[in-house]
Parts: sequence; structure tokens; C-alpha cells
Amino acid sequence: MSRHAVLRINLKAFMSNLNIVKKYAPKSKIWCVVKANAYGHTIKAALKGLRNTSGFAVLEMNEAVFLRENGWKGPILLISGFFEKSELSEICQYKLTTVIHSMWQIEILKKYHVTQPIHIYLKLNSGMNRLGFDKDNFIHAWNELYKLKQVSSVTLMSHFSHSNSKRSVRKQVKIINEIANKIQKIPLCLANSTAILLHPETHKDWIRPGIILYNNFEPVMTLESKLIAIQNVRSKKFIGYGKSYYSRFDNTIGIVSCGYADGYPYNINSSGTPVLVDGIRTQILGSICMDMLIVDLKLCPNARIGSI
Amino acid sequence: MSRHAVLRINLKAFMSNLNIVKKYAPKSKIWCVVKANAYGHTIKAALKGLRNTSGFAVLEMNEAVFLRENGWKGPILLISGFFEKSELSEICQYKLTTVIHSMWQIEILKKYHVTQPIHIYLKLNSGMNRLGFDKDNFIHAWNELYKLKQVSSVTLMSHFSHSNSKRSVRKQVKIINEIANKIQKIPLCLANSTAILLHPETHKDWIRPGIILYNNFEPVMTLESKLIAIQNVRSKKFIGYGKSYYSRFDNTIGIVSCGYADGYPYNINSSGTPVLVDGIRTQILGSICMDMLIVDLKLCPNARIGSI
Repeated sequence: MSRHAVLRINLKAFMSNLNIVKKYAPKSKIWCVVKANAYGHTIKAALKGLRNTSGFAVLEMNEAVFLRENGWKGPILLISGFFEKSELSEICQYKLTTVIHSMWQIEILKKYHVTQPIHIYLKLNSGMNRLGFDKDNFIHAWNELYKLKQVSSVTLMSHFSHSNSKRSVRKQVKIINEIANKIQKIPLCLANSTAILLHPETHKDWIRPGIILYNNFEPVMTLESKLIAIQNVRSKKFIGYGKSYYSRFDNTIGIVSCGYADGYPYNINSSGTPVLVDGIRTQILGSICMDMLIVDLKLCPNARIGSI
Repeated sequence: MSRHAVLRINLKAFMSNLNIVKKYAPKSKIWCVVKANAYGHTIKAALKGLRNTSGFAVLEMNEAVFLRENGWKGPILLISGFFEKSELSEICQYKLTTVIHSMWQIEILKKYHVTQPIHIYLKLNSGMNRLGFDKDNFIHAWNELYKLKQVSSVTLMSHFSHSNSKRSVRKQVKIINEIANKIQKIPLCLANSTAILLHPETHKDWIRPGIILYNNFEPVMTLESKLIAIQNVRSKKFIGYGKSYYSRFDNTIGIVSCGYADGYPYNINSSGTPVLVDGIRTQILGSICMDMLIVDLKLCPNARIGSI
């Protein structure tokens, strides 16, 4: 393959972002959330760059198995739990911690002979209204689980629906505390990325940083391609599809062989979006095409075919 | 892996869509555009479903090689041309037709000893202002190419920037005809999907259907997952992140283990978007999450954990 569209992952940025997270929440243990192939950054790179975490949280069994088979011996959390009975044998074999969010999962667990007791994260729906037991059913679920020989420990996990809002988080924390106060010494895992930054009172036993590991502090990912064509466009011309960009002046533009099929976001408000051409900051013009995008070369007089 | 997020491709829909395209443009030969892994439908499925095409247009060398190695003996077009010199040997080896859109490509071709002459699609920039020679330079480029022993034939290719607009297409066709009239019997390849449907005067020698092969007539792709949780939500509650959905009435909702990390579009205006639950049409509620989406089960009283 000779078309140049390359994703670069900066492992030092991973490390540095994790260190910043630790400074925000020095007393909590950390689940680095690496679901969906580490938000597209590859779980392989995440394992290298984030190895100073306390544990990894994943979505799919194959992500958990990848981590174990590549040497990770610490905790692994299945962040949406198991999807069917057959996964319980892998949960035992690979020593995974699993979320339980619904009664059907408890029913399956009850009937299953585990080779060793499992650590459970029991999900409380404190206002997200997505996964989890509501406050009227959580204690019942906890009672069901706690007595099972299949269960090693139960942690209360909950998720904030609107972690930018102090009022919304306070409302959810009140519900969580009401429940937690009824179960002596139950460990808590509450804070997602935004709550780690904005709401220290939510840090508790474990935190779950996700997006802040990837791009809130230092960006981990760089998407790189090359100029494959340069055009001199006269004033008063449209560039690209439809009326997505109108050139008011004579200008030089560059065509980059990278588009939304390469993972560049389709729906960005593209004109004006920053892009580096051979290190010089300029802007995207018009809409993103399937396999190309257009950059303004007004400020890049040295740009050539092949420029990065 | 036990998480259920499955992409299904309907080969009959591919065939039927291609047949409709043929009825729109019965006199033209057809390049089925299967770049970007057949718009995500997999080039393997496209080769099966679209085998009654005249030729396939691809973006990357590995797509062309895949087609040849899986038995396709007809024409293959590299729709953005070659990206570097090294690809010319594969163009000869696999008998590929290539676009040429810039002078740097002609300079490379001139110096290259080909094992057999190559069919060229010479791109005219008739108003898209992306790839191609403008009308002042096209004839010069054609003259350069035509005399080369490396070249077997030259076809004029151009792309419409605003094919919904009769006026815009007419303007580009005028420029194209001006050039074409200066070169005796040069074959033409102009019409993209929308032009095939709306502008029969653009059909000419070859057409290039893309998106209409995939979903304008009969949808080829189905994305399927399962309900992993069901929640009864009281009235006056927000569902999912932030304020993306507000429930005015008591309702039953389903959580589906499929989100934007599985390829479901993130930026759809999601509430109200149709979805089938066990075949019954209902709607998505709130915004799409990374690995989940929420569906309204008001009209699906028989929905259960595991419902498709």
C-alpha cells in the first residue's frame, strides 16, 4: 500500500496524561478505560502507555483476553458485564471483575458453578437511566449477590449523566450515599473523566478515567497524510462539493489523501479547523470528502507534493 | 466474543441496485465504485454482489490486488491514480487503469519503463476544484500523455461538484464539451451517483455509481444487536447523557449493546430515528453512546432481554 494515511500513537502522552489523572485523585485507585480498542488508539498501545494504572476497564471479552495474554496481571473490569452465560468460564479463567447491571445476570450467576469466587461491580442507576438497578431494587440485588458462594466482593458502581453540572452530580451523589450508608464499608466507584476533574468529592475508592487519557491534556493520537495535489484557485470559485467553501480571493490549496473513510470526522464544521502542513498551522477548507480533504496553503509557500 | 453487534450484507440488494443503475443508463459501461472497503460493506461482498458490473473503481492498491486475486478479470480503475512511482509496476502486473490528475504523475510515468501500455483516465477539473487539470492545462497534459509509448488509451474523466443542481452541472458540462470537442473521439466518464439519476445527458461512455449501489434503492447493510437491559422510567426524567432526552410519561426503554464505536453514526439527530425491535418499528431515544443506544419500547410489549 502506497497511499499515505497513518495513525501515530504517542506513548509518552499516555503516560503523562495518566500522571495528571493521579494528581487529580491521589487517593483513588484507577481503572483506565480502554474499551473500543482504547477509543481507537489500539489496546496494544494503551497497555504499553498506561501500564502504571491500577487496572484496565474493557467492554469485550477479547479485549480482556488480549491484556492477559500480553502480560497484564492486575485487575481487569468488564465495564458492561457479561452478555451471556458462556462468558462466566472466561471470567474465572482470566480472573476478571465483572459489572452486574440487571437481574438476568444474577439469575445466570446463581446457577453457575464458578471455579473461584468473582469480584462484582454492582451498578446503581442513580439518574443516568441506562444500565443499573434503581435505588428501590439495588439493596435487594446486593442481598441476592452477597450471599452467593460465587461472589468474592461487591463494589457499588454508578455513572453520572451530566457530570458538567454541579447540581446534577450532587443529586446523584445524594442517592448513592443513601444506598451506600445502608451497606457497611461497600467500596465505591463513581467518577468518570469529567467528575475526576470537577468533583473531587466523587473520587472514592476507584475512579474511571476514559476520554481524559486520550486528548484532554496531551493528545495521544496524530493522523498524518500527504499532499497529493496543489491547485491555484481563482477568486469567486466554490471548492469541493456543493457550496461548502467559497473562495473570495485567488488562493493556493492543497489536496490531502485523507478523508472520513480514514477516520477523519465527517461532521466537523470543517472550514477553519486547524491542520499542520509541514508543521505550519493552517486550516481545512470546505467539507471533508470520503478520501480527501482540502487545506489552505496561503501561509505555506514551501508546501510541495508529498508534504506531510 | 459474546457481545452481539453484527453487520449483515444483503447480496441480492447489491444485485438489484446494480440492475436499477443499468436501467437508468442502459448505453453506458459501469464502474462500480467500491473504494474504502466498498463504503464499509467489505470489498469481498461487493465482488460477489456486483459481479455483473463492467468494472470496479478502487482507491488503494490492496483493493485492486484483492479483486484480481479473487478472480476478477475485468477492468479495475484506480480512482485517485497512483500515489508513488513504485505502484506503476503493480499497475502493469495487475492490468489496472489509472487516473492521472497532476503533472507530477505524468513526469513519473514518462521516466518509467512499463511492461505493457497503460489505460489512463485523465482528470479534468471542470469546477470541483479538487483533483485534475483545469481547462487551460488539460490539452497540454493530454498531448504529453498521448505521445508516450507507456500509454495505451486516454479517457477524459471529470467530477460534478454539485450534481443536485441542474445549473451547476450544465456549467461543468459546457466546459467538458469545449475540451472534448478538441480531441477526436476521446471517451468520456463523468456521471457520479446523483448525475446518473438526474442528468442522463452526462451518462456518456462510462458511469461511476457509488452511494446508490449501497442505499439509495434497497439498503445493502443491516446493523444488528440485542437488548441487554430493560428499564421502566418514570415521567419527568432525563435518559442517557445530559439533557439529550426528557421522558414526559412513564415509559419502558431498552438498552442496546451497539453504539458509535460499533459504527452507528454519532452525530445523527438521534431521538426519533427509526429502529426495528424484533421487527417492530420504534425509535431511538437520546444521544448515541460509545457502545450503547437506547430504544423506546412503548410499542414493543413483547420485547425481552436478547431481543434483536
